[in-house]
Amino acid sequence: MSAADPSALLAASFAAAVAAADPGKVLPAHLPGPQQLLHFGRTLVVGAGKAAASMARAVESHWPADCPLSGVVVTRYGHGAACERIRVVEAGHPVPDEAGEAAARQILQAAQSLSENDLLLVLVSGGGSSLLSLPVAEVPMADLRSVTRQLLSSGAPIQDINVVRKHLSQIQGGRLAQATPARVLALVISDVAGDDLSAIASGPCAPDPSTYGDARALLSQWEVKVPAAVAGFLERGIDGGIAETPKPGNSLFSRVENRLIASAHRSLEAAAEVFRGAGIQPVILGDTITGEARDVAQVMAAIAREIAAHQAPFQRPVALISGGECTVTVRGRGRGGRCSEFLLALGQASVGIERLWALAADTDGIDGVEDNAGARLTPDSLVRARALGLDSRRMLEDNDAYEFFSRLGDLVMTGPTLTNVNDYRVVLLA
Amino acid sequence: MSAADPSALLAASFAAAVAAADPGKVLPAHLPGPQQLLHFGRTLVVGAGKAAASMARAVESHWPADCPLSGVVVTRYGHGAACERIRVVEAGHPVPDEAGEAAARQILQAAQSLSENDLLLVLVSGGGSSLLSLPVAEVPMADLRSVTRQLLSSGAPIQDINVVRKHLSQIQGGRLAQATPARVLALVISDVAGDDLSAIASGPCAPDPSTYGDARALLSQWEVKVPAAVAGFLERGIDGGIAETPKPGNSLFSRVENRLIASAHRSLEAAAEVFRGAGIQPVILGDTITGEARDVAQVMAAIAREIAAHQAPFQRPVALISGGECTVTVRGRGRGGRCSEFLLALGQASVGIERLWALAADTDGIDGVEDNAGARLTPDSLVRARALGLDSRRMLEDNDAYEFFSRLGDLVMTGPTLTNVNDYRVVLLA
Repeated sequence: MSAADPSALLAASFAAAVAAADPGKVLPAHLPGPQQLLHFGRTLVVGAGKAAASMARAVESHWPADCPLSGVVVTRYGHGAACERIRVVEAGHPVPDEAGEAAARQILQAAQSLSENDLLLVLVSGGGSSLLSLPVAEVPMADLRSVTRQLLSSGAPIQDINVVRKHLSQIQGGRLAQATPARVLALVISDVAGDDLSAIASGPCAPDPSTYGDARALLSQWEVKVPAAVAGFLERGIDGGIAETPKPGNSLFSRVENRLIASAHRSLEAAAEVFRGAGIQPVILGDTITGEARDVAQVMAAIAREIAAHQAPFQRPVALISGGECTVTVRGRGRGGRCSEFLLALGQASVGIERLWALAADTDGIDGVEDNAGARLTPDSLVRARALGLDSRRMLEDNDAYEFFSRLGDLVMTGPTLTNVNDYRVVLLA
Repeated sequence: MSAADPSALLAASFAAAVAAADPGKVLPAHLPGPQQLLHFGRTLVVGAGKAAASMARAVESHWPADCPLSGVVVTRYGHGAACERIRVVEAGHPVPDEAGEAAARQILQAAQSLSENDLLLVLVSGGGSSLLSLPVAEVPMADLRSVTRQLLSSGAPIQDINVVRKHLSQIQGGRLAQATPARVLALVISDVAGDDLSAIASGPCAPDPSTYGDARALLSQWEVKVPAAVAGFLERGIDGGIAETPKPGNSLFSRVENRLIASAHRSLEAAAEVFRGAGIQPVILGDTITGEARDVAQVMAAIAREIAAHQAPFQRPVALISGGECTVTVRGRGRGGRCSEFLLALGQASVGIERLWALAADTDGIDGVEDNAGARLTPDSLVRARALGLDSRRMLEDNDAYEFFSRLGDLVMTGPTLTNVNDYRVVLLA
């Protein structure tokens, strides 16, 4: 891929980012080989998350035909995909529902029924916390839903929410690994900052450093109206002998392996490699860049302006790469996701900076609720838009970035990729 | 200054940034020396902008006592400072008023009365566009005010507003230099992105590439209800023989020198030098970083997190320096300017990143409307706040960052500095 066609280069970098998170491409290398499988009894595949179906499919298509394989994974409504030997269940997200509970109960029972010689293969990806919700016996599902809903709307960070979830769950916080006598291999696609294995899907097979006391303190801090059953359980959890989640150092983890197979950062690194190959310096600014899309665009434009004016802190040609999830506060009546809105704002904020190209797209292939993954910006985007009679400023005000880039023929379309390591953004100064 | 005391180092870097924009420190070196003054007849000092009074004072205090000096400068209400030989007038900003018009008329007449051997010393700083408003004879002040007000509330960028101003002014767009037969030395403190000399205070002594046609197009684009006198003048300006503003290459500029004596970028460079001296790599991310303060904070935190996790794109110890003006959309009922709000949001967004210090302050010494220049963030800010019973999250929601840092004893106070090169922000990863 050459630097002579920046738009093609950006597209190739996005394809590389998606490929690095595609279970079909990255998962097979982590599966036990036929020789290793001889050491195991049977293999049970379980899992949950937005990428669960495509992870299950990747397992199936690389599993020796003569080795037994069965299992069940849970994914979001609409994120299913046909599998033959592994059952794919769709369930509620981000608030758990009964479909997820039933599947989780089945998964737990199947994991408990394994023997020491068996292998529990766990497919973990973002969203698994709510998809694989099996509250402890003392807490009704309705109470777990109530607590989850309140936490989601309280402004609590996801880490805090997960501390509570882990302590009300029979699966999360390492409980799944604890529940089975089998060997455990958890393959993990991370969509969280820092790729903390105990955070992704609330770590069903990972040690959990948090405590019942933490969970109670957080419920109080976030002013959750705690149902009596939840309060009672969290109290007894400390004083009444209900075991804690397994902590780091617990000997059970000697038969457990958690392996990160894809993450936002690895996808950014894969994209970076494309630029390096084209003789362009890639700079990964961060894989956790959040904030209102149009404000993030202003910061990116300012960094680009600094480079254009001072050839510092980086020299052209340079590709400023970032990941994470921006937000869009919808004020207008237009269409568009956070990636296209970021680009439209970037186009306006970077007026006067020459030879600037950009691409922003969601690695799951869906920018918000539209049919595009994202869009691309070229040095002449605003000029071409004006020629078409488009008022870019007004369209940004109206959150109408989809229409803007659609009219320009500059939407990036991939279809759903059935994986997710958040957004991919790159600003290229050629 | 050593890296052992990060808070003191940050304070020293801010002091260096302010000093680099302090007319008392940077202006004298640009004044003609006693020998040069012998070649001139009399010297007239004129000027306008937020720093006009302190620039005038710097001229006075370094001017040979036996050389004649007189003049008048215009600054914002409340930005005056005592001068002996130069008169300091206060006037309206950002919407011009009669006080500014009267002063501008006096300045223009005085400049016209000079001879070829005289020196017109022009002190230019941000805000001068509106402070030095003398509409062309055909346009009443009320019409200029109406057009300015509409443009300010239309969302038009300042560059667009200034194109219109230049073409309705007897002073801006190079008109002041055109009006005098004298030698012209304009000393300029820049508060605009890119330090474009024709943009700062609408460039009273700088060539103006824009045209009457541009002004008309922009008024139409921003849907300004154009008063008849303005419309008529801008039409005749093209067809009726009213001369254009002097363009780049115009021979009159052979007797004119515009000299940038301070700018946001130079202040950031001065701050960078403080870190370099302490063995810490300074990185200037940009001098034009704008956007909602809390969103800019999220981006900065994400870059810091990248560095903390990957020792890239920069290695610790590193100081991430930036300038520009953030905005705060006030939703709560608290107190606080954009710098303190940026820091409070940064504190929350950077939880988990160790050894992070930060300072944000306005170089004019006033963060918003409060009495502080800004504030500082330390690794234990949130812990100390909790111990005081402060709910940092709720205080951010309530735009109450002043109170937050006041209670911590972490406000940065300087008093008004009588100069302005926008905000100074630094995030230090020790």
